[in-house]
Amino acid sequence: MYHNDFSGRKLSMLMDFYELTMANGYFSNGMKEDIVYFDMFFRKNPDNGGFSIVAGLEQVIQYIKELKFSEDDIEFLRGKKIFKEEFLQYLKSFKFTGDIYAIPEGTPVFPGEPLITVRAKAVDAQLIETMLLLTINHQSLIATKANRIVRAAKGRPIMEFGARRSHGYDSAIYGGRAAYIGGVMGTATTLADEMFGVPALGTMAHSWVQMFETEYESFKVYAENYPDNCTLLIDTYNVIKSGIPNAVRVSREVLEPMGKRLKGVRIDSGDIAYLSKKCREMLNEAGLTDCDIVASNSLDEFIITDLLDQGAKLDSFGVGERLITAKSEPVFGCVYKLAAVEKEGKIIPKIKLSENEEKITNPGYKKVWRLYDKKTHNPIADVVTMSHEVIDDTKPYTIFDEIHVWKKKKITNFYAKNLQVPIFINGECVYDSPSLDEIRLYCKNQVDNLWGEVKRFTNPHSYYVDLSAELWNCKQDLINQFSFKDGAQPIE
Amino acid sequence: MYHNDFSGRKLSMLMDFYELTMANGYFSNGMKEDIVYFDMFFRKNPDNGGFSIVAGLEQVIQYIKELKFSEDDIEFLRGKKIFKEEFLQYLKSFKFTGDIYAIPEGTPVFPGEPLITVRAKAVDAQLIETMLLLTINHQSLIATKANRIVRAAKGRPIMEFGARRSHGYDSAIYGGRAAYIGGVMGTATTLADEMFGVPALGTMAHSWVQMFETEYESFKVYAENYPDNCTLLIDTYNVIKSGIPNAVRVSREVLEPMGKRLKGVRIDSGDIAYLSKKCREMLNEAGLTDCDIVASNSLDEFIITDLLDQGAKLDSFGVGERLITAKSEPVFGCVYKLAAVEKEGKIIPKIKLSENEEKITNPGYKKVWRLYDKKTHNPIADVVTMSHEVIDDTKPYTIFDEIHVWKKKKITNFYAKNLQVPIFINGECVYDSPSLDEIRLYCKNQVDNLWGEVKRFTNPHSYYVDLSAELWNCKQDLINQFSFKDGAQPIE
Repeated sequence: MYHNDFSGRKLSMLMDFYELTMANGYFSNGMKEDIVYFDMFFRKNPDNGGFSIVAGLEQVIQYIKELKFSEDDIEFLRGKKIFKEEFLQYLKSFKFTGDIYAIPEGTPVFPGEPLITVRAKAVDAQLIETMLLLTINHQSLIATKANRIVRAAKGRPIMEFGARRSHGYDSAIYGGRAAYIGGVMGTATTLADEMFGVPALGTMAHSWVQMFETEYESFKVYAENYPDNCTLLIDTYNVIKSGIPNAVRVSREVLEPMGKRLKGVRIDSGDIAYLSKKCREMLNEAGLTDCDIVASNSLDEFIITDLLDQGAKLDSFGVGERLITAKSEPVFGCVYKLAAVEKEGKIIPKIKLSENEEKITNPGYKKVWRLYDKKTHNPIADVVTMSHEVIDDTKPYTIFDEIHVWKKKKITNFYAKNLQVPIFINGECVYDSPSLDEIRLYCKNQVDNLWGEVKRFTNPHSYYVDLSAELWNCKQDLINQFSFKDGAQPIE
Repeated sequence: MYHNDFSGRKLSMLMDFYELTMANGYFSNGMKEDIVYFDMFFRKNPDNGGFSIVAGLEQVIQYIKELKFSEDDIEFLRGKKIFKEEFLQYLKSFKFTGDIYAIPEGTPVFPGEPLITVRAKAVDAQLIETMLLLTINHQSLIATKANRIVRAAKGRPIMEFGARRSHGYDSAIYGGRAAYIGGVMGTATTLADEMFGVPALGTMAHSWVQMFETEYESFKVYAENYPDNCTLLIDTYNVIKSGIPNAVRVSREVLEPMGKRLKGVRIDSGDIAYLSKKCREMLNEAGLTDCDIVASNSLDEFIITDLLDQGAKLDSFGVGERLITAKSEPVFGCVYKLAAVEKEGKIIPKIKLSENEEKITNPGYKKVWRLYDKKTHNPIADVVTMSHEVIDDTKPYTIFDEIHVWKKKKITNFYAKNLQVPIFINGECVYDSPSLDEIRLYCKNQVDNLWGEVKRFTNPHSYYVDLSAELWNCKQDLINQFSFKDGAQPIE
């Protein structure tokens, strides 16, 4: 079994160069020991969905644990002739010493709430920016997309087939992992099985069929080799005239005499709705009512929904490029923003303004709460508060919209849970990642518990993510303060 | 310096599981020594462009050289209880022994032509399918997208900033490499510099500005640290009222007294066209006519074209998520298809039919020729021929459209070049990859040489990729033959 970690990988220098120039800069100004708070959050669900699935935390943990800089790295940086020797020496003995809090993998999450909060020395917090973003953005993107596709299939299994169209090796490997969290039943990527235990699946390509004199012979040899798991690809020549008749013949001549059943046929081209109905009829006539019909060919949640609406007779789906690249919206937009700095033990909230209002950040050291209905256990709303605030769930709690503040809702009969959990404290990992199967099951249960309105593909209900009154006030104060202060500095 | 190869990586098992089940199957039928020919080709240029840039060959070579299976891999497969011991022993001492021909990296390529041709034992050819496709698809996708963005900027430098939104670690690393081939001037990904020498670039994030009491102080400290390369991010609070005035002040108070110039200002939000014009005015008034204005914020070739059309005063661009994910079309669709098998030394062409006509493959062992205008050196057309055919460029040569065969064109005053070069012969690498800078320059020259009509973003001219008469006839024969033969096999 492979170690499912980064040993042998050299990823410490996978960072934006500006993280190094900034970190080096902090050394010149007595700021290197300053404690800062960074939040990672996203602004919009992919595909205009109602929620996202966060994933990738286990790899973030491995990265932080193994983060060190080699002599070669230091030498490379020294060659740039812009880094202070003091900074390079710091890197040489670097060990992350901060705190990290995060929402566990597989949790449904919403725009605006901190998925990860980092409290660390300015240098440390800055150097881990790219890897945290890259890891969480990638796996959350794929877990979210996979979950949409799985839900579209309404209980029919989804197999992840996309390695060949993925964006580099890790896109296939960690994409396979994330897709499994999102609910696919397996992957074609053998290495994702070897590394993470995501079940590897697969039968034959067109090339197998073409290798033989006839399609029949290719099916026959396959059935002889894999009688217990025989799914035949039936569209190399002609699904109806050739693929199905040959599959039925192989079932009769090879499998049934062995006491075995034909497990499935796969259609990879043509009008899948029509072909699947025709195939179902022909298979049923031949007594193969238990033979599954599998579809592939550029599927996604929209096409699967459409096929099922048309009454396509499909039992499972192989989904490739549109899952592994999240083709319809291939960017998960987590950002990593400074929220506060500590000066003499006091936490000073920081804000980033912007001409684009939605790019204004939430200041301060914060927590995220999820309020659940006491009876149904459905999540009702999330509330971001300052870290020291506690939501008292023995009393009614009023939430309000950040922009349209008159829109209020009093919540009663609820319980409140803190979504983030401690991952690193003073640089030591204090969190045991659940197994991948546990994460996948947790994800399924959490999604099952969401209101249906949030799960619609078209115009889903916007789940409430509100700010506490204290956080809202702090944010307004900073906006007002800055829109004067820096603007008042004149040219002269 | 890092070795820019796969040492330390364990990628041998990055293959679709069906490659293993098929390869194992070949052992049962006396087919394992059969020699086969596979072509890798794509069917459509991304973004409806007129051409694509092929990239990734150097990584294909490294992969093939290092392809072996560990004891752990064999044990993992044995645990599946479906693989023959003979097959597992074969994997244990596996070494690729076939031939590979490929079009060099950085070449403009067109749909339908084989980018790579593999001649190998069926088992060997099958096992490398995923990694060849994944590598070429990913890097060609990014090189093609980068080239589009670079052309849109009309000579202004493009910097690749996308690591944080990339699809896993390799997406950032090899994406940085591919973007450089496509023409970007540098990357934010430090590791791509350390591994491949793609120049790493970057200045500051909003967090740097927020770390200080005032924007002015943050600029001042930065300028003191990096007087030779001082680009200031001016949109943390307010570009016009605060960012530019503070930048000008730092230029006056810090840089000019040192005899240095303010290199640039970066705008990352707001109406970039408007802001850039206003910034240009204000900088010019302050005597900073040589200070560059850099734009970032979700740019791509379409937005850059639009900004320049609006007269935006921009000198360079930082392009992130829309380049590194090729957001507008994130799939490069190379496929890997069986084209022929050898039986007793004779090459037997193979075809894959399909209900989707564009999925019908070109049979046989083939070559790709590019015909160039003798005077201008512009490519006129590509022709795919059988491998033994030679295009005699001392005489006129007539090409014809594959579907509308009456559309003919007689080509005169041309010279013909074979696009594929030998990479592996009998498993030995016979090719020296050029340096990355050589590939990048070659790409630029080749693209410069294409007709303008092919380079348009909107409705570009469809460059001719035609079949030789011999190949066309072979394809028609096989189509006719199979549409009867397999269809004639009855259910009974």
